Amino acid sequence: MSFISYETSQNMLDLLEVPKNRFEKVALSCALGRVLAEDIVAKYSDPQFPTASMDGYGVRYEDLELGRLRVVGHTPAGTLQEHHLTKGEAIKTFTGSQMPQGADTLIPIENVILKDDGMIEIVEMVPKGFSVRPVAEGYKAGDVLIKKGTKIGFAEIGVMAGLNCVMVKVARKPRVGVLATGSEILDLGEEAQNATQIRSSNNYTLAALFEQAGAEVVQLATAPDDKEQLMQIMHNALESVDILVTTGGVSVGDYDFVKDIVPRLGAQVVFKGVAIKPGRHIMVAQKGLHTIVSLPGFAYSSTVTGILYVLPLIAKMLAKESAYSIVPAVLEEDFKKRSPFTEFTACNVTLCEDGYKVNFSGKKVGSSAILINMLNNSGLMIADKEDTFLQKGTLVHVIIMENN
Amino acid sequence: MSFISYETSQNMLDLLEVPKNRFEKVALSCALGRVLAEDIVAKYSDPQFPTASMDGYGVRYEDLELGRLRVVGHTPAGTLQEHHLTKGEAIKTFTGSQMPQGADTLIPIENVILKDDGMIEIVEMVPKGFSVRPVAEGYKAGDVLIKKGTKIGFAEIGVMAGLNCVMVKVARKPRVGVLATGSEILDLGEEAQNATQIRSSNNYTLAALFEQAGAEVVQLATAPDDKEQLMQIMHNALESVDILVTTGGVSVGDYDFVKDIVPRLGAQVVFKGVAIKPGRHIMVAQKGLHTIVSLPGFAYSSTVTGILYVLPLIAKMLAKESAYSIVPAVLEEDFKKRSPFTEFTACNVTLCEDGYKVNFSGKKVGSSAILINMLNNSGLMIADKEDTFLQKGTLVHVIIMENN
Repeated sequence: MSFISYETSQNMLDLLEVPKNRFEKVALSCALGRVLAEDIVAKYSDPQFPTASMDGYGVRYEDLELGRLRVVGHTPAGTLQEHHLTKGEAIKTFTGSQMPQGADTLIPIENVILKDDGMIEIVEMVPKGFSVRPVAEGYKAGDVLIKKGTKIGFAEIGVMAGLNCVMVKVARKPRVGVLATGSEILDLGEEAQNATQIRSSNNYTLAALFEQAGAEVVQLATAPDDKEQLMQIMHNALESVDILVTTGGVSVGDYDFVKDIVPRLGAQVVFKGVAIKPGRHIMVAQKGLHTIVSLPGFAYSSTVTGILYVLPLIAKMLAKESAYSIVPAVLEEDFKKRSPFTEFTACNVTLCEDGYKVNFSGKKVGSSAILINMLNNSGLMIADKEDTFLQKGTLVHVIIMENN
Repeated sequence: MSFISYETSQNMLDLLEVPKNRFEKVALSCALGRVLAEDIVAKYSDPQFPTASMDGYGVRYEDLELGRLRVVGHTPAGTLQEHHLTKGEAIKTFTGSQMPQGADTLIPIENVILKDDGMIEIVEMVPKGFSVRPVAEGYKAGDVLIKKGTKIGFAEIGVMAGLNCVMVKVARKPRVGVLATGSEILDLGEEAQNATQIRSSNNYTLAALFEQAGAEVVQLATAPDDKEQLMQIMHNALESVDILVTTGGVSVGDYDFVKDIVPRLGAQVVFKGVAIKPGRHIMVAQKGLHTIVSLPGFAYSSTVTGILYVLPLIAKMLAKESAYSIVPAVLEEDFKKRSPFTEFTACNVTLCEDGYKVNFSGKKVGSSAILINMLNNSGLMIADKEDTFLQKGTLVHVIIMENN
């Protein structure tokens, strides 16, 4: 069996045609965490009119030297003031209120004394334009404020609310089906038939991973190593999802049925076998725009390959810029690479004053079944194919996931 | 009016008594993003029995030198094998299967030739114990695998699934009510009565911020500057939420009613006025275990003070370790501080090979109303009270939020 390189596999993945530009409209209050499917353009300027940013009196700056001004009205926030200021006049104006017409400066209430005769006495001067938010201080009509492809966070929600974006056009969530295969695995809560069965974690780990990445997950749970039954489940699932992700059944054994079923579903195998550790038996296939990603069965292997081969597809369908971050980090201990493949090793990533540091404290060395190595926001250190021994102090690259 | 220092205000916030140790049980598939309210302890070891990590034949290592072994059975994954190996015997054993009793080594199928007489011929040796996952390779019964207070990510979900944690004990979400006050503000979609009204963004920005932080938000939307009406709304809301967050009405003006209403609700003012920019008029009060956090009305001010004074309360109620991250970063440009207060300035944070860098490219200087400065995952640079001019190259500290 031949293995293509990691780089080739990622390039091939990148070239896959997947459904794009699918959107839906959701209420703004449901848009948090979604990905924008349109640019958000300012419909009007912020503010639309000169606005007081403190409580005080709207005045003509040149009048301040008069020392005393006549208060001819007041403008609580949200009310319209028709009067146009003339020489010697002031209008009481509040935070958020429109500045009176003709006024160019706000003299704060702390800077004046209100007299019994309705005059104010200026006791402390301010510079011209003081406490007036000019038109378009924040943004002007026509500005692109938020770009398509942005993941919507709290600030984006606020800016859209300010623009009265009641319904927001967001990328539709890719539908991802998740199926764990293997006769030994028991679904959550299912009662064991014998002592050799084990609990399935793959389908739940992956469902959470994909959900966090912005997918809508169809939980297909577990299926036994029964060729016909598996074929039926995969056949039924494929048409209703954008990506069908399976775990197990891709190696060379008697019960590894998934690798044989995929072509029988009418899917074209894009690649099978990549020179990576863990997960070298990974297979990617397509039937039309439906993609099948068949991951190995071990818990750590399926998690790592789910990150490497499914998250990019989800990101692409959402038009997100990237599926995960890759950060530079300095090794805090020696690292001995154990295979001739590109290796992805769970590691602790800590941020110090001079950048990220990586170590493997508490991580267990063993088979690819050890999922607990991924706990506590672990990163994945990338060791290139050519690497053998990486000395303490070496600069490496680490994949870090957003943790919802 | 006197202002307490930022540090004092944070210490006082930290000392507040808030409801804690409130939990609920949720289905594992609904637990993503929640905070664990109990330690997750391994109920059994992983694996519970010596397990094959490849497809092959379970053998006694010492028998390999015989060259040929008799296949006396096979053990698909998930089935029980009763036979105890004796000299010269092999049992076909699959990935994930229990190793046969008496076997200590797995010889992979690639290393043998299956003969017509049911014997296998060893063509390539393996070391003793090859491809056998020993009992407790991953973890052993009694190990604390995940600690109380951990935010549940995909790896935590997978590990809990592997332990058959069907229902998970998580911290109950703190209930946070959000209310924006001001007669000039219009709720989302509401039609304007006159041209001086503006859209409310505060209540939506804050709702998203608090939701992302793990709270259940009660959206109280907007209220006009009407003392009795406001009093009624706040009174009704307070009993049903853990934290009531208001914006606006805390300054010194004629229409700043919130600061007067809070004591009339029977709440004790913890502090009012902090030497920070933006947001120095912030007020925190408590009535029993209910906390009122009254933020200033400007969009940028309320967002920043929401981060500084509400997120820590939410984190505390969830027993999360911290409300946000503070990272060291190097200034890429000079920074001129404009006030004698502790300042929080929206900034661009980028990660380079030697750590975080901070600049203010594209950020607008102006009033505290400019919310767009918070877009694009902006950080908040902290400039201490004593700072005046910070030269390019200075090491500063920056608050960064998790962006859902």
